[in-house]
Formats: sequence, structure tokens, C-alpha cells
Amino acid sequence: MQKVIVAGFTGSMGSQVVQLVERLAEFQLAGVYNPHIDSLNPTDFNLASSVQVFNNLQQITLNDAIWIDFSVPSAVFTNAKFALEHGLKPVIGTSGLSTTEIAQLRQIAAKKEMSGIIAPNFGLSAILLLKFAQTAARYFPDVEIIELHHADKLDAPSGTALATAKAIREVTPEKKFHDQQAASPARGLDHEGIKIHSVRLPGYVAHEEVLFGAAGEALTIRQDSFDRASFMRGVELALNYVSDNQDFIVGLENIL
Amino acid sequence: MQKVIVAGFTGSMGSQVVQLVERLAEFQLAGVYNPHIDSLNPTDFNLASSVQVFNNLQQITLNDAIWIDFSVPSAVFTNAKFALEHGLKPVIGTSGLSTTEIAQLRQIAAKKEMSGIIAPNFGLSAILLLKFAQTAARYFPDVEIIELHHADKLDAPSGTALATAKAIREVTPEKKFHDQQAASPARGLDHEGIKIHSVRLPGYVAHEEVLFGAAGEALTIRQDSFDRASFMRGVELALNYVSDNQDFIVGLENIL
Amino acid sequence: MQKVIVAGFTGSMGSQVVQLVERLAEFQLAGVYNPHIDSLNPTDFNLASSVQVFNNLQQITLNDAIWIDFSVPSAVFTNAKFALEHGLKPVIGTSGLSTTEIAQLRQIAAKKEMSGIIAPNFGLSAILLLKFAQTAARYFPDVEIIELHHADKLDAPSGTALATAKAIREVTPEKKFHDQQAASPARGLDHEGIKIHSVRLPGYVAHEEVLFGAAGEALTIRQDSFDRASFMRGVELALNYVSDNQDFIVGLENIL
Amino acid sequence: MQKVIVAGFTGSMGSQVVQLVERLAEFQLAGVYNPHIDSLNPTDFNLASSVQVFNNLQQITLNDAIWIDFSVPSAVFTNAKFALEHGLKPVIGTSGLSTTEIAQLRQIAAKKEMSGIIAPNFGLSAILLLKFAQTAARYFPDVEIIELHHADKLDAPSGTALATAKAIREVTPEKKFHDQQAASPARGLDHEGIKIHSVRLPGYVAHEEVLFGAAGEALTIRQDSFDRASFMRGVELALNYVSDNQDFIVGLENIL
Repeated sequence: MQKVIVAGFTGSMGSQVVQLVERLAEFQLAGVYNPHIDSLNPTDFNLASSVQVFNNLQQITLNDAIWIDFSVPSAVFTNAKFALEHGLKPVIGTSGLSTTEIAQLRQIAAKKEMSGIIAPNFGLSAILLLKFAQTAARYFPDVEIIELHHADKLDAPSGTALATAKAIREVTPEKKFHDQQAASPARGLDHEGIKIHSVRLPGYVAHEEVLFGAAGEALTIRQDSFDRASFMRGVELALNYVSDNQDFIVGLENIL
Repeated sequence: MQKVIVAGFTGSMGSQVVQLVERLAEFQLAGVYNPHIDSLNPTDFNLASSVQVFNNLQQITLNDAIWIDFSVPSAVFTNAKFALEHGLKPVIGTSGLSTTEIAQLRQIAAKKEMSGIIAPNFGLSAILLLKFAQTAARYFPDVEIIELHHADKLDAPSGTALATAKAIREVTPEKKFHDQQAASPARGLDHEGIKIHSVRLPGYVAHEEVLFGAAGEALTIRQDSFDRASFMRGVELALNYVSDNQDFIVGLENIL
Repeated sequence: MQKVIVAGFTGSMGSQVVQLVERLAEFQLAGVYNPHIDSLNPTDFNLASSVQVFNNLQQITLNDAIWIDFSVPSAVFTNAKFALEHGLKPVIGTSGLSTTEIAQLRQIAAKKEMSGIIAPNFGLSAILLLKFAQTAARYFPDVEIIELHHADKLDAPSGTALATAKAIREVTPEKKFHDQQAASPARGLDHEGIKIHSVRLPGYVAHEEVLFGAAGEALTIRQDSFDRASFMRGVELALNYVSDNQDFIVGLENIL
Repeated sequence: MQKVIVAGFTGSMGSQVVQLVERLAEFQLAGVYNPHIDSLNPTDFNLASSVQVFNNLQQITLNDAIWIDFSVPSAVFTNAKFALEHGLKPVIGTSGLSTTEIAQLRQIAAKKEMSGIIAPNFGLSAILLLKFAQTAARYFPDVEIIELHHADKLDAPSGTALATAKAIREVTPEKKFHDQQAASPARGLDHEGIKIHSVRLPGYVAHEEVLFGAAGEALTIRQDSFDRASFMRGVELALNYVSDNQDFIVGLENIL
């Protein structure tokens, strides 16, 4: 059985990951980590007595385990580096790593021949949408994006919508856009010619649509996230991949 | 049988109206009018020999007919006034009438107790969408509009999307909107708090969506116009209404 | 302040109704009822000490209150009749009343000049969808229904989809349908010519689409229920209506 | 310049292909074929005088050309075999080839080292939908299909919807479906556990939706065909492929 340590195990994602690992037959919850807890008693956290509770990286002597990280942006680089240097394969869901930090982690992993995954998004429908959008754009270079979220979302456009636009532009660098109504605010945000429209309404959760058009036809890809439970399928995929492979991956789309 | 005169009978809408009137059992195509034609011979226009062709208003001596106008903005007021003053009930599909002109026509119609309809839009799906949106907004004041058109459309947002936003605001004057991301172009055009998003893509024809959201639920109304043939059902409704009623109507939504 | 009694107050809907009434300024939670509880102490149920807890109808001496019922099908008729006979205005969300029972309740209400509402559905998006579908069908008699629910739903088609088809047929009794592919199972369930299609997939919650088509155009009405919280807005509407009016209503659509 | 012969050049698809080839800089319309025409004069068909008109296969002495076939099911095998045996690379859009005939054509092509494409569908949005659906099904094995067509369509379900279901089942042979409402006609046609729902309404053209669901999320792929013009982009892709490659392909999805 593959051992697993969950960093950030008391958070909303972390606690769901704990339940996931407990459910999976091929994996065993060996440890949990959160520097801000006082008790090291697993029963205080409804965990089996065999689970080791850590609030200090230096106490962790487990190795050959997978390190799943849903902690906080300020801690994630230190955590991930510690993991790689101590023989723990990282699966990083925490955001906040810079390009330089990612490059550094990749280098350590390469030297130590360790597998790992850094993924800003574990939602499979969102990841497949991005992949399909990239392929479709080769044949349908005219494309716009609509993302719809609950009214309390703090940013617009959503990070995933912008990432989709960027991913599409990577495969259609030669496409030129002409927008006759560019001056109208109704045309939304322009990312190198691709328009992004953000809808914010109560009731909605998190949804993204990519609309492609060409003479006489249209192709639309839509994903709906109703519940964070959906991320667990992506975490499970990552666990299996890291367990069975040797390479270090950035972006879950690269293993689908 | 109710007699009908079609003004602008050689245009794309006018010629479809001619075919419609020829098809309807209770109506009879009595005359057609276009000041820019030379021949007054109906067979030159594939019309029955009983149809009178006019290129001058003063020649028209028919009365007790319906005057359907799909001519041009510069002519429509003169045409409509002529019709009312000569006992011809106007059904006006031509755009371009000012508020003052409409008021003046309404006054003449009232004095002469004549029926008539001025309608900027004869598409039943678009009209029902507007009506439903007004009703829904009473219970779902949080609303956004997405309209999607072919890439060659010359304006953004579409006139119908803006009209929808205005109609909704009429019934929700007290609603206050707070948009945390108001500064982002991704949020679209703001009409008194209602966001309008315009998509322009090849392949698309003319489509409008009104999205309502509230705690735990959403309501969406969408209409698709694939073909101008769809307007003929609205023209038929207008013909029947004008034929059977005494009042003067602005907006087909008021007879649905 | 209008007093309110909640029957079935420990159920999933009932407990949300309790919270709603506590939140509303013009209403006061005066009592709660459930024949299967042992304690009559409000603090055992996290209720204010001023709230009377009942497990026996005969103990209830409050009058001039609203009786909201989210109990069980086997109890609802007895409850509703008791309410009317004791001066309590019923708002009935429990299903299971027969046509005869509804007629009997209506008769008692009429004799005692009491208001009340029996509503199988308090979701405003679903009720507006039904209303709009009825209106649209007058102009778009060709219509099909798609309802989408989570994979665990026990019936197909959904009760609301069937109710929508019936409501549409009421206003289009003369419409004749010709289905060339009537023999194919792909055409779904036929209700007097209106096809109903039921999708069952994990992830989905509760969604209904009514699709109308006519020459060159389409009109679609869709509602999404993501959460039961959405029903509370309908309950609030019912409370206000019953408080301010004298008539007895079956179906929330009749007060929208 | 690559020479091209169009078989079935007077049909609705064939005549669009003629216009396409005339428009493309790298291709030259060298010949057209239809056994049912009397005149061999290109100007009778609005073709350039350099275009050879054939009504008999035996007259065709061109070689090293591409043979595009949009003729009729009864002629397509003879045509395709003739093409391959006379050094003409076939691009076959005509339906009606049996599995045995396709195998035979593939064999001739292999022996003569000639490229060719047999494609039942040239609509890129439909082909991409099928490809994406196959990939998505690996991660979302729970899936249903809705196809929507105009009311005059003669079959249900559509051939492409059935092909989509089959393609999905190829990649998810181990998936087991449990449908609690299998007995209800509302659940549509069952293809090895995948439900297909066919909507038939006036106004609609040709549309297909594949709906995937999993815990807490959904993924939907939709394509809309508004106009046959959309097929020409697929024909152009096929022309370029056959011109530049050596292999014999069945299904345009294999070159996307």
C-alpha cells in the first residue's frame, strides 16, 4: 500500500482529501500536517490511531510516501521542497507557486528521479474543456468564452477562463481577429482577440462555456462545477499517476 | 375578404409579405407600392393581373384596406400618415419612426377610430422572450443578458438586447445592483445595473438569452432566429388583429 | 405580527421553513407541530422559549395563525382540515392530497371565508417556467420537454415535466401532432403528442427545459434547481399572500 | 496545381464542391462527371471551357487527379474502384459503401500505394464532437446523448448520434449501467446503456449534444449545423490531406 501524507488536512479541500485517501484501497493515510494545530492526537481529528499527526516539518521521518498539499500559498514552496528532499512525492493543489519556484522544484525532482504533480485545478470537466478547446481552435479559430459564477466571486474574469484563452492562443498564434464593435463594452474583455464574458448571478456555482463558430456551424463546450466533491476524482487520478510513474508534471491536463 | 396593400413590396421582407398575403384565405392582395419602380404592370412582378401596382401615393384610391409597410426609414412616416388619412389601416414594420411621429400617428388613428400596429420586431420568439423576461424580473431581479450574432453584425449590443434590458428595468425600478467587478471589461455593457454581453461569431445567426439567478436556482429564456421566414407568423398575427380590432398598438407584445 | 405554526418542523423542508419564519420581520413563529416527538420543550429543538411545541392537534388552541404544512402525505388532509376548522390559514407544501380532498378543503375555506394555498411546488423558477410554457404554446404549439436529474431519482419522467405537458395541452387542445418516428424509443414518452425526455446523470441536480420550434425560429425556457434553499422564496410569497388576501388558491402559479 | 474531378457535380453537395475547388488556389477543376447528363459542353453548366465534362467513366483519361465523389449510393463503389484503378485519388462523401466494399477499396489503394479518404460526414463540428466525446468518456463514463433536428427528418435517432454512442462504447467496454427507470419511455433509446433522445421540431436544423455527469460536475459538448456550407471546410481538409499524404483513411476524424 502506498502511504500518503496530507498537508493542510483541516482545510475544506484537505479534509475531503483525507476522506478520499481513507476510502481508497491501494492508499493508506500515514500522516497529516498543519503547523497551526496544538494537539498531535489523531483521535482529536477523528483519524485512526495509526495516523501520525505533525505540526512541524522536522518531525516528519516518513519516506516513500506521497505528499498531498492543500495548505496555503505562503507555505506551499517550503512544503514542496521539503517533500522532494525527503523522498516524498508531491501532489500540489495549493496555488501560489511562482514560475521560478516551479522550475526549481522540477529540477530537484529530476535530479532525484522523483515523480510529482503540480496542478492549479483538479476539476476534470474544467481540464477536459481546456484540452478540447485547444484542439477545436485549430479548426475553429473564431472563439469566445463565457464564464458564469455566483455573485460573490471576487474576480472577473475567472482564472480558468483566462487560462483557456491563453491556451487557445498558444495553438493559434497566426490568427488575426477583426472586431468591428471593439469599442462597445458589450464585447467583453479582450485577450489577444479572444473575448471573455463574465456573468455573476446568485444561484450559479461555477460554469464555463467556450463557443466556436465557422461558416454554417457552431461547436460549444461547457462545464459545470456544482460541488467541490468533483475535485476528488482529479486528486485520485494524480495519486495513481504519481504512484505509478517517474516524471514530474505541471498541469493535470498532461496526464489525461 | 380583407384587402391588403404592401408598401416596399420588392424588398426582402416586402416580397415575403406579398407571398404571405397571397397564401392567406381571408386576405386579398389588392395593391403594391414602391416609388422607385417604372412599370405598373403586375405581371412584370409575377403578381396576379388583379393586383394594382403603384409608384405614386396620389394614385392610390383603394380604401378600407390594410397598409403593410416594409419600405425605408425616410418614407415610413409619410406613408403611414397617408394611409391613416385615406382609410387604410397601417401595419408598420419599417424602422425609423421617432417618438413624436408615433404620437402624431396615434392621434390621427384615435380621431378617425382606426386600428393599426407599429412593430419594430415581428419575431414571435423575440417578443415572447421580452414579455417573459419582464414577468420573471419581478421575482428574479438579478439578471444578465447574452446576445449572440453573426460576425458581420454592425452594432453591439443588439437593439433587442438593449430593449430587453430597458423593459426589465421598467418593472424593477427599485432594484439596486452591486457589482464588485464593475471595473473589469469582462462584465460587459451596463444598462442601469443589467449587464449585456455581445458575442459575434461566424456561423451564428441571431440569438438572445436572458439569465436570471436567485438563491439555489436559475431561470433562462433563450430565443433563436434562424431565418427571416420566422417574421411572417408575426405579420399574420398583426393582419388578423388590425382586421378584427379598433385600437392602435405600438409593439406586437401588446397583442400577444 | 402574523403568527405562524409549522407542521413537520423537524423535516428537511420544515426546518428550513422554521428558519425562514424566524428571519421574517412581519411574521412570528408561534408554534411547531410533529406528532412523533416526545419533548414539548422548545429549547430541545433550538427554538425560542416563546415557541409552543405540539405533538397533538387537540392541544393547539392558537387561532388567527398561518398553518404551514410540510408533514407527510398520510397526515396532510387531517392537518389541513383541522387548520381550516380552527381558524388557521393553511399553506400546504406536503404532497398527497387527492382531487376530492382538495375540493373539500376549498369548500370549507369558502364557507369560513378563509384564505389558503395548496402548492405542490414552491420553486419559483419551475413555476414561472410552467406559466411561460403555457403562454408560449399558444404561438408555438410544437413543443418538447427535456428534464434532467441526478441518477438516483426514483421516477421518470419527473412530476413537474408531466405537469408542464398537461398544462400546455390545456391551452392547445386543438393541436394535432404527427410524429413520423413515433415507433422509435428515442422519441421519448408521449403525453398527448408532447414528447418528454428524461436524462439521469450523476452530478446533475434538477433541471427542466421546454423547447418550442416554428418556421425559422426557436424559443427555449430552462430552469435549474441547485438547492432546496430556493423553495423558501416561494414559501415567503405564499405567507404574504395568505396574510393579505381572502381567497383559497391551488398552485402557486396563480398568485405570480 | 493538383487536378480535381467532381463526380455528382450537379447535385446539391457536388455543386458546392465545384465552387469550392474553383476558389482554391492550389487546386484546379479539371473534370466533372454525371452519367445522366446529355451535354458535354462545360458552358452549359457555367463551367470554364477548360473543364472536361464526362457522362461515361470510360471517356475519362485524366490521371494523377483527385476524384471527389458526391454521387449516389448505387454508383459509389464502381466510381471509387474506377478511380483507384486509374490513378485517381478518391475522396468519397457518398454514403452506401458496405464494410466489404470499403475493405476491397482499401486493399487496392494499399497495393497501388495511393491515398484516399472515405468520410460519411464532412462537418467538422460533428467530427470534433465525436472525438471529444470518446476522450471525455474515459473520465466520465456516465453519458447521454440528445440530438435535435427539424420535424421532417425521416429517421430517429440520427445516424451521427448512434455513431457517437458506438464510438463512446468502444472506449468504455467495461462500463456497466444501471437504469432504475429503464421501463419508462421517457428514458429514450438505449444503446448498450447509453441513452439517446431525439427531438424533432420545426425551426431546428441539425444539432447534437453529449452530456457527461459525475459527482459534483458536468461536461457538455454541443454542435450545431445551420447550413450545408459547413461541410466545405471538411472537404477542403480532405483535399489537402489526400494531396499531401500516402495513406487511405476511413473517417475524417482520423486526420484531425
